[in-house]
Amino acid sequence: MSLPRRTGWYVAAASVAATLVYGFACAPANRSNSGAIGTGDAAQKAYVAPGTHDEYYAFMSGGFNGQVGVYGLPSGRLLKIVPVFSQFPENGYGYSEETKGMLETTFGNIPWDDLHHTALSQTNGEDDGRWLFVNANNTPRVARVDLNTFEASEILQIPNSGGNHGSPFITSNSEYVLASTRFSLPIPQADIPISDYKKSFKGTISFITADKPGKMDVAFQLVVPGYNYDLARAGKGPSKDWVFFTSYNSEQAYEKLEVNASKADKDFIAAINWRTLEACVKDGKAENWPADYMHNHMDEFSRVAVTETKKSVKVLNPMTCPNSIYFLPTPKSPHGADVDPSGEYIVAGGKLATVIPVHSFTKLQKAIADKAFETTIDGIPVLKYEAILAGEVKDPGLGPLHTEFDGKGYAYTSLFISSEVVKWKLGTWEIVDRAPTYYSIGHLMIPGGATTKPSGKYLVAMNKITKDRYLPTGPELTQSAQLYDISGDKMKLILDFPTTGEPHYANAIEAEKIKKNQKKFYSLAENKHPQVARNEKETGVSRNGKTVHVRMAAIRSHFSPDNIEGVQVGDTVLFHITNLEQDWDIPHGFAIQGATNSELLIMPGETRTLKWVPKALGVYPMYCTDFCSALHQEMSGYVRVSPQGSSVPLKANTLKAQGQVARAAARGVTLPAASAAADPHAAHSSNGTTPKLH
Amino acid sequence: MSLPRRTGWYVAAASVAATLVYGFACAPANRSNSGAIGTGDAAQKAYVAPGTHDEYYAFMSGGFNGQVGVYGLPSGRLLKIVPVFSQFPENGYGYSEETKGMLETTFGNIPWDDLHHTALSQTNGEDDGRWLFVNANNTPRVARVDLNTFEASEILQIPNSGGNHGSPFITSNSEYVLASTRFSLPIPQADIPISDYKKSFKGTISFITADKPGKMDVAFQLVVPGYNYDLARAGKGPSKDWVFFTSYNSEQAYEKLEVNASKADKDFIAAINWRTLEACVKDGKAENWPADYMHNHMDEFSRVAVTETKKSVKVLNPMTCPNSIYFLPTPKSPHGADVDPSGEYIVAGGKLATVIPVHSFTKLQKAIADKAFETTIDGIPVLKYEAILAGEVKDPGLGPLHTEFDGKGYAYTSLFISSEVVKWKLGTWEIVDRAPTYYSIGHLMIPGGATTKPSGKYLVAMNKITKDRYLPTGPELTQSAQLYDISGDKMKLILDFPTTGEPHYANAIEAEKIKKNQKKFYSLAENKHPQVARNEKETGVSRNGKTVHVRMAAIRSHFSPDNIEGVQVGDTVLFHITNLEQDWDIPHGFAIQGATNSELLIMPGETRTLKWVPKALGVYPMYCTDFCSALHQEMSGYVRVSPQGSSVPLKANTLKAQGQVARAAARGVTLPAASAAADPHAAHSSNGTTPKLH
Repeated sequence: MSLPRRTGWYVAAASVAATLVYGFACAPANRSNSGAIGTGDAAQKAYVAPGTHDEYYAFMSGGFNGQVGVYGLPSGRLLKIVPVFSQFPENGYGYSEETKGMLETTFGNIPWDDLHHTALSQTNGEDDGRWLFVNANNTPRVARVDLNTFEASEILQIPNSGGNHGSPFITSNSEYVLASTRFSLPIPQADIPISDYKKSFKGTISFITADKPGKMDVAFQLVVPGYNYDLARAGKGPSKDWVFFTSYNSEQAYEKLEVNASKADKDFIAAINWRTLEACVKDGKAENWPADYMHNHMDEFSRVAVTETKKSVKVLNPMTCPNSIYFLPTPKSPHGADVDPSGEYIVAGGKLATVIPVHSFTKLQKAIADKAFETTIDGIPVLKYEAILAGEVKDPGLGPLHTEFDGKGYAYTSLFISSEVVKWKLGTWEIVDRAPTYYSIGHLMIPGGATTKPSGKYLVAMNKITKDRYLPTGPELTQSAQLYDISGDKMKLILDFPTTGEPHYANAIEAEKIKKNQKKFYSLAENKHPQVARNEKETGVSRNGKTVHVRMAAIRSHFSPDNIEGVQVGDTVLFHITNLEQDWDIPHGFAIQGATNSELLIMPGETRTLKWVPKALGVYPMYCTDFCSALHQEMSGYVRVSPQGSSVPLKANTLKAQGQVARAAARGVTLPAASAAADPHAAHSSNGTTPKLH
Repeated sequence: MSLPRRTGWYVAAASVAATLVYGFACAPANRSNSGAIGTGDAAQKAYVAPGTHDEYYAFMSGGFNGQVGVYGLPSGRLLKIVPVFSQFPENGYGYSEETKGMLETTFGNIPWDDLHHTALSQTNGEDDGRWLFVNANNTPRVARVDLNTFEASEILQIPNSGGNHGSPFITSNSEYVLASTRFSLPIPQADIPISDYKKSFKGTISFITADKPGKMDVAFQLVVPGYNYDLARAGKGPSKDWVFFTSYNSEQAYEKLEVNASKADKDFIAAINWRTLEACVKDGKAENWPADYMHNHMDEFSRVAVTETKKSVKVLNPMTCPNSIYFLPTPKSPHGADVDPSGEYIVAGGKLATVIPVHSFTKLQKAIADKAFETTIDGIPVLKYEAILAGEVKDPGLGPLHTEFDGKGYAYTSLFISSEVVKWKLGTWEIVDRAPTYYSIGHLMIPGGATTKPSGKYLVAMNKITKDRYLPTGPELTQSAQLYDISGDKMKLILDFPTTGEPHYANAIEAEKIKKNQKKFYSLAENKHPQVARNEKETGVSRNGKTVHVRMAAIRSHFSPDNIEGVQVGDTVLFHITNLEQDWDIPHGFAIQGATNSELLIMPGETRTLKWVPKALGVYPMYCTDFCSALHQEMSGYVRVSPQGSSVPLKANTLKAQGQVARAAARGVTLPAASAAADPHAAHSSNGTTPKLH
């Protein structure tokens, strides 16, 4: 078998994009000077003066960092990295006893994933600012991020899935987020040869209930042919009961896909009526398949992650739920399937295609009614391309990927290989502007661009190659985004801004929809953590076998207790630290020398637990890691560690210990799990599982 | 014992700084309108147009994220997070088999630390752009970051230290980086009561050889009284053989330091002559103390971390090395000890002091000659305050912390509590300007401000409280920096920019000193990784007991092999992946479903190893995680996992497997350690330790 190392596509992709943009033989001739905005004007447009706020929050997927980057627009400033699927040593996410559970899967506790896409919750097809949903690509999961706390509050594993790339896309009232298999698999898993791919590998499309916090679940899955499912959008308005998924590798190759999955002239968009699927499930047409997957959520009051394992999933087959799915032939290896604000047009970005095809939802309905089918695959009718086509954008450039809309009748498509954005008119399909990108744009994003009400002021290009755009930083360069002003007829480049991880997609939303709902601190009175110390008098130390619990309070600028003795080598010491502050922006941190663990960063009113197993005798310093006051440097203490079996009694300089009976003995603090069960303050759990410290 | 919950200091620090700045009773009356630069002008000054580069690299400590943030100035854009002391799921640092060793300590493998300070390497007192040194505060270590690759290349643990805060400060020809104990300890460690503090706890100041890459070592340590050592600077010019460390807690409190360590009117700056210490060591006056500490460095050619454990350290006592150390009384709980570009003035930021005292190096020499001593502590002469004082800056504001210099005769001091920067004149000590900061500035930084040749164009304020400066992000807000133009008489605020982690200190350097030296990729020909595949023919799979080695190549846009069978449940599978690209900005990534591990991000020419232990049978997808070409989505493959004891043979679709004898059998690939020993290509190691995969 020959393995061509460089096809034309490779050459294009491998070249420095300056060549691509200006020198590529196929590049359109009518390139505008869109990038050539006056520097002064651009500076003003991108500048957010000290003391003033950005206009938009942009939530950019972190790609291979597994997190979400929150940026302000138009400044391009990174406001926060929200840890979701990866450990985050900076604040202890995935390390602290309370947060470890968020990363639990049936494969074990996983410290990383690849977060590709974002979806803001919607009401009536508009962004409502409640939640952000994001996907884990490698070990399939979907997460909810609460936009009043900017925290991942819920993660649901997806069974029967390999490579959860086409995810999470949301229906227009947040009924479901959607998820599909980028990689088909033996479903259920089996020890079979990879060469059985065509016979035995299948895809799934999952419908995940999204509008009840803490209750995400796989409502049902649809088994689909063994292709690679890529991106999707739900419909809007007239098409709101439908969802549209792209697929590639209709060749069903299982090795060297770059060659073997790029042969067919057309692949498919899957058009799926989720109301029909719902009805089939209601009619009992779904099978309950055994499946192992986990659901983790952060309990609101204990702020301890609650994990449950689910054991079955409802699965539908197109054969038994007719009229639920149709294939729309679409050239070639399509990436994006983007629905315009009216819900009428479904735009496909065929990364190897020479046109941008636009399907008509009206024609799709008629073609179904007319049974204008080319053929049927695994019970799925394949519609005739001509019967559903609204039009084609001709000569768009090379490598169209993804399209967004400005709400003013125009669409904007990213072109990876020719490294540009083209603006074209819905209905006439004529190209009205193009702007180069530096370099090799993947997705693009317009605030609200995926909704019924886009805000057509800015466009962000998320580029895949950076090269010389910033000061160099060795072999590994930053990722790069570019901000365009699209308020006028012509796109105007106003800012290059670097991004963390590798953003694949983003959503942006008017700042006012988010900032009004912000939680500034957690209520100490409502803190239901099993080891909370709501004031310094509730602090103490206790021993249960080889486990030592330290119930500690942090307040400017001391820990209480801050001298602890009687810990022994090999003990498991659990520092349960409550931040007693009740004001905004006063976190405390906690670290102790030699811990093979991250720090804790504890928000006001919150309790967090660090596990420490001292390995050698001595006196070890601990301290506050987050500069909290003029006397922050003084916020420190010591733990004395004695040999195993030492007679040094467990004690601490708690308030009570100073002249009274030591709290530990007086109160008989027990293991957190037992404590949670016995304690009237034990955490509220919405699904009946008692939160416990892992 | 009473515990006052709010002193005057707390009230000030806790209030929103707008009150502090404008309403604080003690705030100076002559506040200028420095912040009121015209918006248009400021926008121009901060704007770096698309396609152009920033003027300076700023290396900002990441504080409790354990990393270094690299920013461009004046844009404030984050160019890179360099992982140093914390795991970094984004690129596999601390997770991959090659990089785990960088985080090894005698306490075990530690996924996190707290990085407070940065120090650029110097030649003749000027920044030379070769290396950046940084400290780990919690589990004492110092690291070197190479500024041609922007990677941590070396980490040295520091024995006999608790809280390595006063670190790393560098001498003017990079002879040493300095490190001190923030927390005194029993030295050597002992199981003794914390109340023995005054009797038994000591500090140390460590001198670490810095100018030989791969050879960092603790040259010697000086035992000092049991205070808290905080910050330091080496001298310059006439004072270049000296270093100056601040200390607080001369009260020797060991609990509730906020109260008990804030009583004395003066603490000390320790002035230490390192040439004298060197001579004492040479004269055999140091004792060899047993000590356990680790040295890790990234081998240049294998790019595998090499770890060695050191077993002793040279320790000096002031008693046996006279004239090496003096105490300079300094009000009150001093934080910064900053030496002006001439080397004559040592400026102290006494965080509870009402003046900024400036010591004179000339007077210090005379006072020593005159024996103008107040007393002696543990063999250390305490000089008379009046004998060494050059002058005092009166009424500077509240909470002076740290001072930098513009090279034009002015000093700039940060004031935490009154939340401002004051500019004052060296020699006359008169205040000539003040600018508010938002809010509660900690350190400040001027490019080159710690050297003999500051670049007096910009000043960066690193603020400790953020509050309302940016769009809110729930209880946890971004950290905040501010950029001031200091090229004129008055400071002008031009930009607020958010920062990751919590920057404590920073260095900035002219971009030209760094960018010319950048490595763009690693040479495949020089790759000495024991499991490198320098081309697709060198790939293969092999089994050794329950360990499976997959030697894999990545090149746009496929892995070779990309179909692997014969792996069994419970095997330890080591994917050794070489990125065959030899061009800039073409990393590949690697992930496989269900791995309880991070991804790998593999730079061109580099080999990285991911460990995967499959727990259940099935066929698992793997894929490239870094968008690398138009056919990146196709860069994927499968691994079949069979039950333990299965007869499915180990095989892969390597080039050789296609029609020839399978590579694994033909070549007999062995375990990496064994392979490294036997292989003539085994990694070069500068210290004789053979690199191996952990």
